[in-house]
Amino acid sequence: MKYYSYDEFRKDTKQLLESVKPLQVDMVLGIARGGLTLAHALSEGLELRNVQTLRTELYDEQIKRKQITIYSTCSFKNIKKVLVVDDIADSGDTLKAVMEELILQNPSVEFVSATLFYKKTSVYEPTFWVQEADEWIEFFWEKDFSF
Amino acid sequence: MKYYSYDEFRKDTKQLLESVKPLQVDMVLGIARGGLTLAHALSEGLELRNVQTLRTELYDEQIKRKQITIYSTCSFKNIKKVLVVDDIADSGDTLKAVMEELILQNPSVEFVSATLFYKKTSVYEPTFWVQEADEWIEFFWEKDFSF
Repeated sequence: MKYYSYDEFRKDTKQLLESVKPLQVDMVLGIARGGLTLAHALSEGLELRNVQTLRTELYDEQIKRKQITIYSTCSFKNIKKVLVVDDIADSGDTLKAVMEELILQNPSVEFVSATLFYKKTSVYEPTFWVQEADEWIEFFWEKDFSF
Repeated sequence: MKYYSYDEFRKDTKQLLESVKPLQVDMVLGIARGGLTLAHALSEGLELRNVQTLRTELYDEQIKRKQITIYSTCSFKNIKKVLVVDDIADSGDTLKAVMEELILQNPSVEFVSATLFYKKTSVYEPTFWVQEADEWIEFFWEKDFSF
């Protein structure tokens, strides 16, 4: 298990910003909970006031395939390009389902994705990612506020 | 101007958690952008998966009164008590408008509010706040990711 500190986050997020900035996205869409702090940092770095969020729930039933429910009430009015943000593409199931649904529901909007970590075994590779994860990552927002 | 670091944020957020935990809220609602990192940290500390966000825009017209537009598409299904989160109650205009609107639109839901900073001149005092602000606060998420 690797503890991922705020200092590392700061460095990696600045690297992500360098990659993402030239795209000139209109909006940042964070996947809760994991993507919220990154979505905030990126929206500040990109000077974008339009930052929205969505939630997902994953039901892993024994017989059926994994079912992911997406709770999204985002507004893409006047939006051309969206940066979808999560902390990690681990199994990749969530990010894959979210991206497919967003693209399906909003054919006139372009969606790109960014994470801090990417696992080679993920079923989805984000457009941008910073570090490859080969062990369990304990993010500072998970660790630093627990009692 | 005071730079507000991650280390201070960590300490203050843990203090806020001590106050908020006994309330047993069902949901955290972060006001974008300023409240996003705090909403994330509090939802992790409270072990709440239900974290949603809303956006506001403030039009400060010369003749008319200040107009605040709230972009909210939150779902309060099965929710009894919500913690509304922002970084600072400065003028307090945003938080006041948001709280009034939420209470008006959702009479069966209880709303409490929490911020890191509170200014004595604010028109609204959050239910919970940690520090009194007497100068301009530059939050780490505003400073650390700018180019």
